[in-house]
Amino acid sequence: MISEKMINLTMNSSAIRAMFEEGKNMAQKYGAENVYDFSLGNPNVPAPEEVKKAIEEIINTEDSVMVHGYMSNAGYEDVRGAIADSLNKRFGTSFGEKNILMTVGAAGGLNVILKTLLNPGDEVLTFAPYFGEYRSYVANYDGILNAVPANTETFQPNLEELENMLSPKTKAVIVNTPNNPTGVVYSEETIIRMAEILRAKQKEFDTSIYLISDEPYRELAYDGVEVPYLTKYYENTIVGYSYSKSLSLPGERIGYLVIPDEADESGLIINAANVANRILGYVNAPSMFQRVIAKCLDAKVNVEYYNRNRETLYNGLLEAGFSCIKPEGAFYLFVKSPVEDEKAFCDAAKKYHLLIVPGSSFACPGYVRLAYCVAYETIVNALPKFKELAKEYDL
Amino acid sequence: MISEKMINLTMNSSAIRAMFEEGKNMAQKYGAENVYDFSLGNPNVPAPEEVKKAIEEIINTEDSVMVHGYMSNAGYEDVRGAIADSLNKRFGTSFGEKNILMTVGAAGGLNVILKTLLNPGDEVLTFAPYFGEYRSYVANYDGILNAVPANTETFQPNLEELENMLSPKTKAVIVNTPNNPTGVVYSEETIIRMAEILRAKQKEFDTSIYLISDEPYRELAYDGVEVPYLTKYYENTIVGYSYSKSLSLPGERIGYLVIPDEADESGLIINAANVANRILGYVNAPSMFQRVIAKCLDAKVNVEYYNRNRETLYNGLLEAGFSCIKPEGAFYLFVKSPVEDEKAFCDAAKKYHLLIVPGSSFACPGYVRLAYCVAYETIVNALPKFKELAKEYDL
Repeated sequence: MISEKMINLTMNSSAIRAMFEEGKNMAQKYGAENVYDFSLGNPNVPAPEEVKKAIEEIINTEDSVMVHGYMSNAGYEDVRGAIADSLNKRFGTSFGEKNILMTVGAAGGLNVILKTLLNPGDEVLTFAPYFGEYRSYVANYDGILNAVPANTETFQPNLEELENMLSPKTKAVIVNTPNNPTGVVYSEETIIRMAEILRAKQKEFDTSIYLISDEPYRELAYDGVEVPYLTKYYENTIVGYSYSKSLSLPGERIGYLVIPDEADESGLIINAANVANRILGYVNAPSMFQRVIAKCLDAKVNVEYYNRNRETLYNGLLEAGFSCIKPEGAFYLFVKSPVEDEKAFCDAAKKYHLLIVPGSSFACPGYVRLAYCVAYETIVNALPKFKELAKEYDL
Repeated sequence: MISEKMINLTMNSSAIRAMFEEGKNMAQKYGAENVYDFSLGNPNVPAPEEVKKAIEEIINTEDSVMVHGYMSNAGYEDVRGAIADSLNKRFGTSFGEKNILMTVGAAGGLNVILKTLLNPGDEVLTFAPYFGEYRSYVANYDGILNAVPANTETFQPNLEELENMLSPKTKAVIVNTPNNPTGVVYSEETIIRMAEILRAKQKEFDTSIYLISDEPYRELAYDGVEVPYLTKYYENTIVGYSYSKSLSLPGERIGYLVIPDEADESGLIINAANVANRILGYVNAPSMFQRVIAKCLDAKVNVEYYNRNRETLYNGLLEAGFSCIKPEGAFYLFVKSPVEDEKAFCDAAKKYHLLIVPGSSFACPGYVRLAYCVAYETIVNALPKFKELAKEYDL
């Protein structure tokens, strides 16, 4: 009757989103303070004050018809120019306005670039564990997503397996650093080696392999760790950025794609991505928030808040007997489940009103993800519950 | 290399958008006051004052984390409830919060519902002339769009041809009233007859045929004409609405779908549309503007401004010798080209800095579209140019 694909997807719909809805129901039933919801990456740190100031300035000084109107599908020229300048200053790149395409968040950006690149049957590789929505984004354009198995020692990408899996059908590789769900930041060494492999395979197959860098967590890095800018290491890199986390604006759906001149067929890709942005029904990124973020390019949420959460939750979980690598970025912990069936573990956690997401949602069973973008008090109050939970498993 | 479909689409990209870009270039070259750009449906009437007030109220009184954060993919419950109440009051319907799905404009809504409904090869019908983007929206989900030929006498939908063309493969019919590009409002008589035909064909084929009502122009109707609410006439109606025109917010990408309980499989469609909204990368409609429009449900742009434009342009064109039906809604005139090849006519108009769109963009060659959502002065100053143009054709 209706779309069979959609019926199947609806049946197997996002475990994360299902838990978000469940969390809301539990909060109503037991009181929000008695539910410890670590399920969704919904920033709890408010947007920096600059955002509010920018909104006020825009609605009081700029022309309403321009602020809320259509512009080129790629976005306002001045906004795109300001973003290019800011990137060039920070990373020593040399982007111009034409290399920036404003998008409806990073999710919108990924859909635009996949629509632009993929022919039916093309393969896209990514590294497990990975954000489960990639599967749908690639399937939307009849591509095939294959996951390079995880290196569960370090959760750095498994480059030997990547080398084995790359094929003449590989159109793109999606990477996500700082990573959801592990919090790992790819090291420069890893990136240099990955670029070498991709370059060699391009030559071997006489194809272009695009590296799609999904970067919503770029600004969330701790302990002074650097997050290398991938276009500098590999020519065929396309960046998808989002202000969802850096400015705590996930609901506003504002981000951009960077399509560098160095990428193969970059002119064609820029034009086609523009059209894709329009015909996928985005038309353009929300107009006023394009102008808002242009005024907030040097602003950032209070990353220290997340850092304190990270330290407290990480140390508390270790103390309770759980094991987990210490993340350097994003706001997730990827914790080893004490039993193989991590879904059963997530169910057990629910008894303590602890909401956590099974690793199988990220193609990495045996682990669970905790999003620590929550109130510090939630972590403090949840830790005794985690201790009780640990006892159930004799940790 | 990159997507072949996208390469073809990029080559044949929207004539309307191309003209929008050309208009911007001409304005730079000749001065904005010397270019008469009737190409794009970009409202020139500012958003009502209520929008600015709502933004100020929200950023000053509501919690930033809530205002800019994720919510359920369908949108904020209170916003959806307020929209349902407002529709029920205006149209005597009985929608609840669950029947409303907030979308990234009407374009986003159409993509969500087409993704939800279509299996590859399913047919969608629409009435020529029609908004050319429908073709891409349907093709995005491997559907096939077929156009019922225009009734160029009245530009009311050609129901006899509809009856002939409906087949067991027809999954949906898209209607757009008030209409882009003709400005026609479907009469109640037309709608009743269309509903009868669809019901009879559903029975004959033992299928469900969904009527998708694309309603961005609902609030723009003149001379006191009524725009009937289609869910009251046909059970399997799904409405796509947008605030782009009613509140002059086209850049903000805010609208909604109505999926009534009366529609076949409505529960399944509601759930699947939710998932489609997420996996198409919209995730949710922009959050702050969801809250803004909930505060502006009784607000409306100054429709009288468009009405004055309509009267002046319509009368002026008739005086110059052109022929055109008088539109009752939207902000377009669909004018008969004095020569069969209306693209040549559009090119001729460019010499006078008149930018108008060929009817072949709407699957109705021999006509041209003028969007009169422009400054009144533009119309006044353009009319002498239209007169000169008419003389070229001995009108």
